[in-house]
Parts: sequence; structure tokens; C-alpha cells
Amino acid sequence: MDNLNETIQLMMNHRTIRAFEDKTLSDEQVKTLVQAAQMAPTSSHRQVYSIIGITDPEVKKELREISGQPYVEANGHLFVFVADHYRHSQLEGFDAEVMTQTFETTEGFVVGVVDAALAAQSLNLAAESLGLGACFLGSLRNDIKRVSELLQLPPYTMPVFGLAVGYPTDEGSQKERLPMDVVYHENTYETEGLKEKIAEYDENIRAYYQSRDENKKDANWTNIILKSLQRKYRYDVDDYVKSQGFLKQ
Amino acid sequence: MDNLNETIQLMMNHRTIRAFEDKTLSDEQVKTLVQAAQMAPTSSHRQVYSIIGITDPEVKKELREISGQPYVEANGHLFVFVADHYRHSQLEGFDAEVMTQTFETTEGFVVGVVDAALAAQSLNLAAESLGLGACFLGSLRNDIKRVSELLQLPPYTMPVFGLAVGYPTDEGSQKERLPMDVVYHENTYETEGLKEKIAEYDENIRAYYQSRDENKKDANWTNIILKSLQRKYRYDVDDYVKSQGFLKQ
Repeated sequence: MDNLNETIQLMMNHRTIRAFEDKTLSDEQVKTLVQAAQMAPTSSHRQVYSIIGITDPEVKKELREISGQPYVEANGHLFVFVADHYRHSQLEGFDAEVMTQTFETTEGFVVGVVDAALAAQSLNLAAESLGLGACFLGSLRNDIKRVSELLQLPPYTMPVFGLAVGYPTDEGSQKERLPMDVVYHENTYETEGLKEKIAEYDENIRAYYQSRDENKKDANWTNIILKSLQRKYRYDVDDYVKSQGFLKQ
Repeated sequence: MDNLNETIQLMMNHRTIRAFEDKTLSDEQVKTLVQAAQMAPTSSHRQVYSIIGITDPEVKKELREISGQPYVEANGHLFVFVADHYRHSQLEGFDAEVMTQTFETTEGFVVGVVDAALAAQSLNLAAESLGLGACFLGSLRNDIKRVSELLQLPPYTMPVFGLAVGYPTDEGSQKERLPMDVVYHENTYETEGLKEKIAEYDENIRAYYQSRDENKKDANWTNIILKSLQRKYRYDVDDYVKSQGFLKQ
């Protein structure tokens, strides 16, 4: 690949890290990461998100229990990304009768989730650029209401996911992505040849799982995705987001 | 700020670019950008998004009309990011009766939107690292149904936003973000002192608008946000996403 600079190399080298040294990030490191995240693009300068840093050991422990993942407790710093329209509702001159509708639509919900995710991916890459590792934690949505209570989130906010950051104790491993021509389409969505391309990808993923030292398994991408699609879970996310004022249209 | 490496410098230097040279990105550049985007984190290896590159001048023209933004037509390359569960529905062994529920929940919708946004922020930063500029286009949701038709999107997909990339003809300008302690909280959501901090920020933003050579205006952040919250728009996003199979729970 031509044009490989430091930033693109960093992206191409991404791997999820799920094991961290027992070493806390410094305030300076947290500041650098948050400020880099804040410079991510945001819809119409609205900045529709907040970031909660979790330093209280009791809260980390409870979040670990919710997620079922030990690295939610054992890491260098734990961030929770929150879609946040509450801040806008507190502006001087805010007219609740007219303006809360903007938060309550599906459009408003999308804006908040997108803003949180853009900032989070900047923070994740900034961490990686400093030699740190990270893991996104959708698992906080296993009990989203409880997470919201723990963080004392006000109306018109929603915890979207967590991000555990820290000093890696292993290299992680890189999972091959879908072939580019499955993900990237020109002008219109292309469905032709999809099954054949995925069959080929499945072979590569099977070879990856067979080659691992630990957690070796006989599985391919299709198996793993179908298994995950059988799980009936996080149905309560809908009730929670509605109770926070979203998706009311 | 300590620890400033090339990647973090790039993030701190981010500015939205809305004017591009009449020079098309090469296939090699597009490949580099998409492959960097594909390495972004994705929920449980699901890769719940697609990217549509728009090269057809007629389609670009229509998308410009939908967005009202000339740079949707005049750029180096136009990407549309799509939340995409359709691909999973095509897997060998997919059991529609059991598995489509996973797409139809609010949880499933969030996963697709987040995956699309994480990939997009990687693509955006990769473009900036190559000296290109970019602009996110939430404005494609002005007529999301029409965008979906133009791109021939199948069920269980949704165009989340566009991203125009190209060779900048100006430097853009950087908009100061909210103070870190407004966006970043420790352990619990902090509301104390919010109004005072925003009042101070408003002064900075007013000074910025007054200092501009073009589009000088007498406005602060609060004014601009409140004005944007008065707009009743994109109410049809909800109908559209439901017609695509989302948010049915």
C-alpha cells in the first residue's frame, strides 16, 4: 500500500486489547486523550456527547459485573461515552416546548450516537498512538439502566458504550476484515457474488482460529455471526432510551 | 501538551473542509482510505456497515440538491456510510424468524450506527493524514428515503451520513470546542457550574465569529445551538428507518 504514513500504519495495525497492566493513566494522559477526542467532527458544532471517566473502584467493580468482562475493572482508565442532549436543554433561553422535540426524534437520537462514536474513535486512536491499548465495551448496555443510575445521568442522555484504555500486557491479535469489495460499493449497493466472497472469507477466518495458540476453535465468520444473532438480548435498551426522552416521535 | 505525536497533532489540527480542487482521488487513494476505515473497531467482529463511493455525476448532483451543499457534488470523492445488517441476513443458515429480531431492536440500530461512525472517523483521519480534507454530511438525511432509493439500499440498511473528501482549496478554520470540564466528568455526570462555564465559552466563540474575514457575525455558541434546535426537520427519518426494518421492537 502506497502512502503509508504513521497515522495510517497505526490504523492498519489496530488490535483490541483486553489485558492491561495494573498501572493508572496520569491526569496528563487523560487530558491529552480527551482533548484529542473533543477535536473530532461534531454535527453543526453541537458536541452532543459527554465522556465520563470512572475512577471509583466500587463503580468499576459494578460495571465489570454488568459487562462480565474483567478488563472493565482492571485497566489504566475507563471511559464511558454518553450521547448527551441534556447540556443543550440547560442553555439560557432554551424553550422546552419547541426544542425538546429535536432530541425526541430518531434524527436527534442518531446525531447523539454518531457524535459519541466519532469522539470515541479519536480517543481510541490517540491512545494507540501513545503505545496504549483499548477495548470498546458495548457490554455496558447489558444493563444500561443500571449504568445510567450509577453515573447519575440526567434526561436526554444515554451511555452508548465504554472504552477501557491501558498499558497492554499482550499484543492482542488482529482479526482480518471482510474483503473490501464486500464492504465498499460503487454508486449502488452491490449484492452480486456476496455468498461466494463470504465463503472465501470464512475459510480465512477458520484458518485464523485454527492457528491461534489459545482459544483455538473450529469456526468461521458465518458461524460466529449466526450464533451471536441467536442471542435475544439487550431488549431493554429500547425502554431505557425512551424513558430518557429519546425516540418519542 | 506532552506526548504530542504525529497522530495526535493531526487530530488537534482538525478542521472541516468545504471547498475542494477539481481533482478526483485515485483508486489507490480510495483503497487506502477504505482499508484504513475497515480496521476500525467493530462490535463483536460483525462489521455492521457498508460504504458506498459515489462516482456517478448524476447521483452526485442529486445528492447535492438533497443536501443543499455544493461540496457534495464538487469534491475528490464522495463516500456514504450505511448501517448495514442486510449482509448478515444473507448468510448461509440465517434463520429469519429468530434472527431478524436482532436487527429490529433499538440495540441493533445503535450497533449499526456506531459501527458506521467508527469506520468513518478512521477514514476521515486517514484522509487528513494524507493532506486531504473532508466534511461530514448529516445533510444527506434531509431526504433519507430518496438517498436510499438512489443507492438502491436493501432492507436492514440505512444511510447514516456522507463524507466528502478531496484536495482542500482553503485551510478551513478551527472551531474551539467546549471546555474540557464541560464535556468530561468524573464518575458521575456533573451539572454544577455548567451555566457559568458555557457563558465563558460563549465569549470565546463570539470573539471567533467577530475575527473571521468572511461570514463575520455577532453570535455565540448558545445563540447558534438554540437557533438550530428551533428547526423542525428530518422528522421523516423515523418513518424511513422503520420501513427499512429498524426500531420495530
